[in-house]
Amino acid sequence: MNEFDLIRSIRHLADELPANGFEGIGDDCAVLPLGDEALVFTTDALIEGVHFLRHATSPRELGHKALAVNLSDVAAMGVRPVAVLLSISLPTTIDEAWAAEFMDGFTALAKAHGVALIGGDTTRSERDIALSVTAIGRGATAALKRRSDAHVGDTILVSDSLGGSAAGLRDILADHLDTPSAAIHRNPQPEIEVGAWLGTRTEVHAMMDLSDGLASDLRHIINASKVGAEIDIDHIPVAEGATTEDALCGGEDYKLLLTADRDAVAQLCTEYEAHFGHKLHPIGHIVSAERGICWKKQGCETNSPTPRFSHF
Amino acid sequence: MNEFDLIRSIRHLADELPANGFEGIGDDCAVLPLGDEALVFTTDALIEGVHFLRHATSPRELGHKALAVNLSDVAAMGVRPVAVLLSISLPTTIDEAWAAEFMDGFTALAKAHGVALIGGDTTRSERDIALSVTAIGRGATAALKRRSDAHVGDTILVSDSLGGSAAGLRDILADHLDTPSAAIHRNPQPEIEVGAWLGTRTEVHAMMDLSDGLASDLRHIINASKVGAEIDIDHIPVAEGATTEDALCGGEDYKLLLTADRDAVAQLCTEYEAHFGHKLHPIGHIVSAERGICWKKQGCETNSPTPRFSHF
Repeated sequence: MNEFDLIRSIRHLADELPANGFEGIGDDCAVLPLGDEALVFTTDALIEGVHFLRHATSPRELGHKALAVNLSDVAAMGVRPVAVLLSISLPTTIDEAWAAEFMDGFTALAKAHGVALIGGDTTRSERDIALSVTAIGRGATAALKRRSDAHVGDTILVSDSLGGSAAGLRDILADHLDTPSAAIHRNPQPEIEVGAWLGTRTEVHAMMDLSDGLASDLRHIINASKVGAEIDIDHIPVAEGATTEDALCGGEDYKLLLTADRDAVAQLCTEYEAHFGHKLHPIGHIVSAERGICWKKQGCETNSPTPRFSHF
Repeated sequence: MNEFDLIRSIRHLADELPANGFEGIGDDCAVLPLGDEALVFTTDALIEGVHFLRHATSPRELGHKALAVNLSDVAAMGVRPVAVLLSISLPTTIDEAWAAEFMDGFTALAKAHGVALIGGDTTRSERDIALSVTAIGRGATAALKRRSDAHVGDTILVSDSLGGSAAGLRDILADHLDTPSAAIHRNPQPEIEVGAWLGTRTEVHAMMDLSDGLASDLRHIINASKVGAEIDIDHIPVAEGATTEDALCGGEDYKLLLTADRDAVAQLCTEYEAHFGHKLHPIGHIVSAERGICWKKQGCETNSPTPRFSHF
């Protein structure tokens, strides 16, 4: 049983339960609209031996990462994270210094983005470190961006260069621990400010964060919006030290993937660059569903990149 | 490092972060007041080898329990659970049938109490099953019951007989798997209806759920409310098959512990019994802080019971 089978089966079960005013599973976050305002909710687990190796990740980096991946999901909805709950299960081989460093990494990122730590659970584990974070975001209901809102004709954009994290992982596995790419992999920066800014732009339609890689994640917007996509591989911004393949298929970049009204894209890109000091990158456009996803290189159709990333 | 040291250190760190309108750590749930209404949040993890053994717990029971312990925390706040997120990490030794049975147990309880499943994360784990559930409750702000609201003179009550789960655990460990107590231990029933009903009663002041045992949990209300307590051990309702010691020190009963205005207690107990068909039990009263907790038996002070339960 792989992750997606299990998710499908859970979604099916969830559909049989009442909604209680929440919008169903499928986006980066669940949404509770409360009039003009909405709350969003997401949860992500990090498990030793699957998502990280104890000897290869410092506790500070792990604390940072456990929070970062959740804040990224909130940013992808176009609203700001306001609070988190932390579930932390530690074997007895973990000492107080480790726990203190972990919490330092976690709270430093929370502080940087003004996020409250409102609760959690601390337990022992038998062998492996298990972490689970639930993040809560809050913002204007009108600001919410969903995977299902891409329209035919929309321009597809990414919020920054891609592949840096994959390049960093390769460096780390080759024992080059101190490269700039390795630092990117170790300390992913969720696009909190970018997500909140894009949330205020009505010309932005669908949005999600890139955690599994463009080739894999794009399919979520395509499926949810019942559209197709044409991507110009030459336009994908490749991070320094990364290859085009890293940018297409590497995971854990935590940049944002979005679609926007094509008539407003030029203005959007200008204002984005003025605001953030780096470019917003158009990489293709949304087409009708029957065309699927078409990857182009120098104007010609090319093979689909093969997604690399599966946690399960 | 034990659980309480880690919790203390996390609380200290949480205090340095902004609150963003949430009420801080310390109760069964964190609270987000939104005018007349409030949302509450709690998270609890269940880890294989610590909270359960795979061969001794059916997947259906585990699914039930993972949800039950979280719903109990919401009920303890005096409001209804409305939604949950489920984080589930499974080793490859777990098959599809196990996962389906687990989800059956989980969703049956969710359905019974009208709770939505709004999201989650499914990942692989290296060796052990790791579960984390976040529950969200919603209700009138005026209904919220906190550990810190006990007043000197209040009557202390419990919502049902205690010790049944501890007796069941003893049965199970002695290989008597089919006793009524064993069934109680395997399928804890969170006091959803009782919690919501008590939430509507203004004469009820402090409330929490009994997860670690009365002797241990009572201290949380005492400390949070800066009061003391006098408990009449003879008045503690002991579940069938359980001993007084089980009722005092056994964990996982998930009944509610509350304090109420003593002048209104007789009426409260009468209406409670009429509504639920079983008694609400006065077991003592709140005294001033300097008196600490005093345990009485046949009118005389006796030794404090020794809490049994520590997850860490």
